[in-house]
Amino acid sequence: MADLIYRVNMSNLSFKIEEVPSKWMGLGGRGLTSTIVAEEVDPECHPLGPNNKMVFAPGLLSGTSASNSGRNSLGAKSPLTGGIKESNVGGTSAGIFSKLGVKALIIEGLPKDENTFYQLHVTKNNVEFIPVPELVGKDNYAVLDAMMAKYDKKVAVMSIGRIGEMRMNIANVSVKDPSGKLRSHGRGGLGAVMGSKKIKCITVDAADYKEVTIADPEKFKEASKIFTKALQENPISGQGLPAFGTNVLVNILNEAGGLPTRNFREGTWEHAENICGETMAENIKARGGKTTHGCHAGCVIQCSQVYNDKEGKYLTSGFEYETIWALGAHLGIQDLDLIAKMDGLMDDLGVDSIETSVVLGLAVDAGILAYGDGKKAYELLSHDIPMGTPMGRILGAGTHILGKSFGLVRVPTVKGQGIPAYEPRAVKGQGITYATTPMGADHTAGYAVATNILNSGGHVDPLKKEGQVELARNLQIATAAVDSTGMCLFVAFAALDDAKCLPALVDMINARFGCALTIDDVVNLGKTILKREHEFNIKAGLGKADDRLPEFMKYETLPPHNVTWDFSGEEIDAFWNF
Amino acid sequence: MADLIYRVNMSNLSFKIEEVPSKWMGLGGRGLTSTIVAEEVDPECHPLGPNNKMVFAPGLLSGTSASNSGRNSLGAKSPLTGGIKESNVGGTSAGIFSKLGVKALIIEGLPKDENTFYQLHVTKNNVEFIPVPELVGKDNYAVLDAMMAKYDKKVAVMSIGRIGEMRMNIANVSVKDPSGKLRSHGRGGLGAVMGSKKIKCITVDAADYKEVTIADPEKFKEASKIFTKALQENPISGQGLPAFGTNVLVNILNEAGGLPTRNFREGTWEHAENICGETMAENIKARGGKTTHGCHAGCVIQCSQVYNDKEGKYLTSGFEYETIWALGAHLGIQDLDLIAKMDGLMDDLGVDSIETSVVLGLAVDAGILAYGDGKKAYELLSHDIPMGTPMGRILGAGTHILGKSFGLVRVPTVKGQGIPAYEPRAVKGQGITYATTPMGADHTAGYAVATNILNSGGHVDPLKKEGQVELARNLQIATAAVDSTGMCLFVAFAALDDAKCLPALVDMINARFGCALTIDDVVNLGKTILKREHEFNIKAGLGKADDRLPEFMKYETLPPHNVTWDFSGEEIDAFWNF
Repeated sequence: MADLIYRVNMSNLSFKIEEVPSKWMGLGGRGLTSTIVAEEVDPECHPLGPNNKMVFAPGLLSGTSASNSGRNSLGAKSPLTGGIKESNVGGTSAGIFSKLGVKALIIEGLPKDENTFYQLHVTKNNVEFIPVPELVGKDNYAVLDAMMAKYDKKVAVMSIGRIGEMRMNIANVSVKDPSGKLRSHGRGGLGAVMGSKKIKCITVDAADYKEVTIADPEKFKEASKIFTKALQENPISGQGLPAFGTNVLVNILNEAGGLPTRNFREGTWEHAENICGETMAENIKARGGKTTHGCHAGCVIQCSQVYNDKEGKYLTSGFEYETIWALGAHLGIQDLDLIAKMDGLMDDLGVDSIETSVVLGLAVDAGILAYGDGKKAYELLSHDIPMGTPMGRILGAGTHILGKSFGLVRVPTVKGQGIPAYEPRAVKGQGITYATTPMGADHTAGYAVATNILNSGGHVDPLKKEGQVELARNLQIATAAVDSTGMCLFVAFAALDDAKCLPALVDMINARFGCALTIDDVVNLGKTILKREHEFNIKAGLGKADDRLPEFMKYETLPPHNVTWDFSGEEIDAFWNF
Repeated sequence: MADLIYRVNMSNLSFKIEEVPSKWMGLGGRGLTSTIVAEEVDPECHPLGPNNKMVFAPGLLSGTSASNSGRNSLGAKSPLTGGIKESNVGGTSAGIFSKLGVKALIIEGLPKDENTFYQLHVTKNNVEFIPVPELVGKDNYAVLDAMMAKYDKKVAVMSIGRIGEMRMNIANVSVKDPSGKLRSHGRGGLGAVMGSKKIKCITVDAADYKEVTIADPEKFKEASKIFTKALQENPISGQGLPAFGTNVLVNILNEAGGLPTRNFREGTWEHAENICGETMAENIKARGGKTTHGCHAGCVIQCSQVYNDKEGKYLTSGFEYETIWALGAHLGIQDLDLIAKMDGLMDDLGVDSIETSVVLGLAVDAGILAYGDGKKAYELLSHDIPMGTPMGRILGAGTHILGKSFGLVRVPTVKGQGIPAYEPRAVKGQGITYATTPMGADHTAGYAVATNILNSGGHVDPLKKEGQVELARNLQIATAAVDSTGMCLFVAFAALDDAKCLPALVDMINARFGCALTIDDVVNLGKTILKREHEFNIKAGLGKADDRLPEFMKYETLPPHNVTWDFSGEEIDAFWNF
């Protein structure tokens, strides 16, 4: 049976099930969410008002046995950036949506009754609207527990905590992963959009949990094998990431002088060793955690981990470099266990661990806490933010709003979104991605670190301007396409360095749908998506002046390489010449 | 002697005195500040960073005996709107600058030492940089007292209070008026720019206080007489404003259904009588205040007043309709004396009384206080804001940031600036001005209320779309020109209805400078200024999507006329076709 569009209207608690219009047929994941948002959402609407929509869509290969194909996309107009947003996640939702035959779930409108939160229960040809007063004021794990008590453990659960209820910009949408922990549609404040629509959680039950149909199973199997081998043989996705997780990057970036330290004042941190991937792996091994762990079924990279405290008690999983960097070098916490505890708490609260950690680091500049004061940082995170105190409201509104509230000049954001983990002056290709991606400062949108620092797909000198615009452009185009397949971004390392990888990926798509796409088609899909998103942003009011890094990076020199951000506006704007 | 440009660089505490380049020669007031900002300030710079500039410029007729010519302009990139800003003020500064021969005072850079605040003392051919540690943490009247103890009473004083030191977006720049009270460069957060430059106050001493030279004194005298007569014979500037101040408008707008009530939910307020101009005038008379009072020497309208409490003690002056509306109908305070007390406090603190009152009214929607809770409102204003508590930081950042911090949808701002006192759905010409003026929601930029409600310059039905774009365009062009002359905006009523008024104004300019401008020249000047400002804003990132009213006004119907904001984007954008 063909996939269908499930369309929910919160204004009158109704739903419709629609056939997929032909124009959306070849799209999945980000390609589909961004297309639907661009077609159906007024770019000038208020992100928390009745005219914004949330669109969930699994990737083209989600629900199949293809390695690392379990990413689900969520799109909307972002309350954080004011532009279009796509944020994809591992966990179980992509697979379940695909198996249920849901091409996209579109959620429109706002309920008239402002005091009731709902659970949406999505099953074959049905959506139930269940008031959940008992879950109001609860955070993610409590919601998850309640749903697991009620349904089969395989039911997909997407939820918000108190932060999302309060419509804070740092709110994410959390998703149950295969081990019962949480993954996040992290960036862009999409949890606030869910909160505005008074949806506490969404459960999706695919009943028999069968795999999706494959048009040419033999071809699929063969391509899948090649693809998996490419991932496993790549030194980054096959060795570095499984051994140390993404946190392998602390030492790498520190050595490269691109680890933003003390709110982007320096490119190296003297205490990097305390928080690096190697230290993390040692702790995990000594305490009975797991160094390898997948965020979704079928992951062969296993960059996640389970990190326990000294007593062997669970602290967190999905413990990522960007969060560790922000609470570490940026905010100054040297205690990796405390960082892990805060990471686990952020999962439960349902906040973007990047935005939240970046804003806490900026709070040092605002005089709210001292550099390295983990105790105060924990108090702000565990008390002020979830209680919605005035201080919590400022921090919960994100980095840009903290800067505005305290009259700060050194505010590390692009399009209002906090800059993560890679110093743009010292990793200039990444800087171009931060400046230009329609998503606001987002490292995943075009991960130039790969070629600037990790020598994936060749090498472009991170400190020089030459080649960076082209690099960021090619990577963003490729990423827009990859984000449409349901693939984890980390397939990019193999795709960049192994000539067999990308053809195998395209072959899997062709085998799944019985079509005959070429690599050029996929590249063109990436271009189309990127331009569509860019056009939405321009209509929403995000123009050239928003494709810029913070001004201070132009006149402040970053040690140790003593570099500035030296791209002119025209040079940056040339990104869009394709 | 020809006028000169005084240019101050705070980065190294130096100054230069420059001849006026020929391109700036015919400009004054807003025309000059906007031109200098557009030419010299990078539109993409951070408003509180080293690359913003403050530009003070008296109007073309300031310092002469022309009635109502005492307005001084201040321009900069606004931290509130992110666009260009001009805010003009009465008081004594325009006259003193003119008499000293200062065509413009340009202040650049930021001091390296972040802990020292300065007084700039401007005298003939000199600028002194005087550290004033004793004034740090003081508000405006304390600064004024200190300066009056030190200098001749005629010295002009411009200052910021604690709010400006803290670089809050509601901070204004206050100016001493002839009676020793305060007037404000109110809107756009220009006090935060002054705070960022570590300038606590600016004193200007013209030593002998002579009038400026007039090329043709006879012609000037004659034109001046006609002009003054036109002001005095006009029913609004000659009778309404002197009798009740601008607060004459409470009853007028309430009757018109255009008095925004309960955060723009209704167009009439059942308690309007408690705060109206008639009640105000009665109180003043009963308590020994003054119903008429001029904000600058040479004012023949005298719309200001001195408002005392029941014991006859001074509460405030310059007690304007927009402030009274915001604390009244918008926030719900029915006690005019409390409103006056808050108005006086806002003068001392140095905050934009519109932005501050609008944000306090929105705070009701955020659940921070109850509608009408004056006690809590006073506490927020007198404690939280000046102490810079977290709540004070949110409110002090203005209406837009409060909305962002609390995830609110019904946020009455345009370009981040709070909408004042005239409901755009019920006074649609004013709505077009709010949407399009480069200044952010600013009623003075093109006061369509005049023709929509007061029947000045004819009548355009306030509830219908027809003619509003043209009306707002013509008024904004005229206002940009008037704001360049140093004239008070209230000369517009006579200019609209008395055929002799505008020619007399042009004659005065010609007589002052010995030139031969026509009315067309003046109109073209207005067009040029407006386009220059608009172009700056576009480069700064404020495009079509920012020329919009809040979305809720499109789908919420306003009683009693049950009107919505029904202009399409294209219709609004047609404003710029000139």
